[in-house]
Amino acid sequence: MGTVKPRVDVREAALVEARAIIEESGLEALSLREVARRLGISHQAPYKHYPSRDHLLAEVIARCYADFAAYLDDSTKGEMPPDALRNMGRAYMRYALESPLSYRLMFGAQMPDPAQHPEMLAKAQHAFQLLRSALEALPRPGRTASMLEADAMFIWSTIHGLASILHTRAIDSLQLTDESVEALIDSTLNKIGMALGLQPS
Amino acid sequence: MGTVKPRVDVREAALVEARAIIEESGLEALSLREVARRLGISHQAPYKHYPSRDHLLAEVIARCYADFAAYLDDSTKGEMPPDALRNMGRAYMRYALESPLSYRLMFGAQMPDPAQHPEMLAKAQHAFQLLRSALEALPRPGRTASMLEADAMFIWSTIHGLASILHTRAIDSLQLTDESVEALIDSTLNKIGMALGLQPS
Repeated sequence: MGTVKPRVDVREAALVEARAIIEESGLEALSLREVARRLGISHQAPYKHYPSRDHLLAEVIARCYADFAAYLDDSTKGEMPPDALRNMGRAYMRYALESPLSYRLMFGAQMPDPAQHPEMLAKAQHAFQLLRSALEALPRPGRTASMLEADAMFIWSTIHGLASILHTRAIDSLQLTDESVEALIDSTLNKIGMALGLQPS
Repeated sequence: MGTVKPRVDVREAALVEARAIIEESGLEALSLREVARRLGISHQAPYKHYPSRDHLLAEVIARCYADFAAYLDDSTKGEMPPDALRNMGRAYMRYALESPLSYRLMFGAQMPDPAQHPEMLAKAQHAFQLLRSALEALPRPGRTASMLEADAMFIWSTIHGLASILHTRAIDSLQLTDESVEALIDSTLNKIGMALGLQPS
């Protein structure tokens, strides 16, 4: 870099640099000063767009949620309820394995306080709402709102757990092959269906 | 600190300091040099016990697995098979919530390569074996070894997923109360039972 970009781009350019910094050096390395340095602009310039480092990070994460939600939404287009839910599960796992950085940013431990960043919170809630909607579309009479909420948390826990295990080296201790990873995803989705009283498809 | 400890203690003292460093400053801050500095011993002294920083970290993690396995094992003592499995699930969640550092070290992303640290690998495999054994003890005729393996991975994914979600701020987006966390753990364990074709207890 080193060239001064037109000011209108700083907001977007800062998001790109922020992701690059996190990818290269971890979350701890992210600061507005470092973003400014990489963009070749004054230290003060990013503050016109982001009041703090956490505001920038919250916006990076909000974009991840929006991208993730669009990806999940696409996976269910034109599908009937039980297949839609299963496809969403597959899409979730694919996203987690193919976009580990975005996944870690959304579901990692060091996210900014959602109460302070309502835009990020809204995007996160929208992604979760897609799962709720897929569950609501299932023909299951007598399902109360709180049962549905517990079902949604169960599905999320299970798929997030599998994705997290596949991201870590803890899985190496069990010495799984690539085929057994695929089989594991299938069998996990089948078991979720069993737990919810659905037929395996 | 600052006093030279008898050499026989260095091995154990280094483990204590390593955990303290990780707890205070994160995994990145761990080095044999920093351990030596805190113990007030020469930079070379820790190398007599640990060939590298990763060997020290592997031993810290191996101890976590041993402690975790003992905790899970205790939870199932004198219980009949289905209750033993459920109690193990509860104990797992309790451990994850009460010992977040140990939990993160065992199942976090930056563990040393298990192939290079067979002692750590053995301890990790022993902990997973407790889950397999609890499953083997269930009266379920016709269950093959690979079905049992998939069941074990499913249980681990689900409970690990819930524990991870409860560790992160992503859960704040959903605004759960403490009671709903307890209810969530119960409902998750019930659903695992359903998925495995067991009766809820």
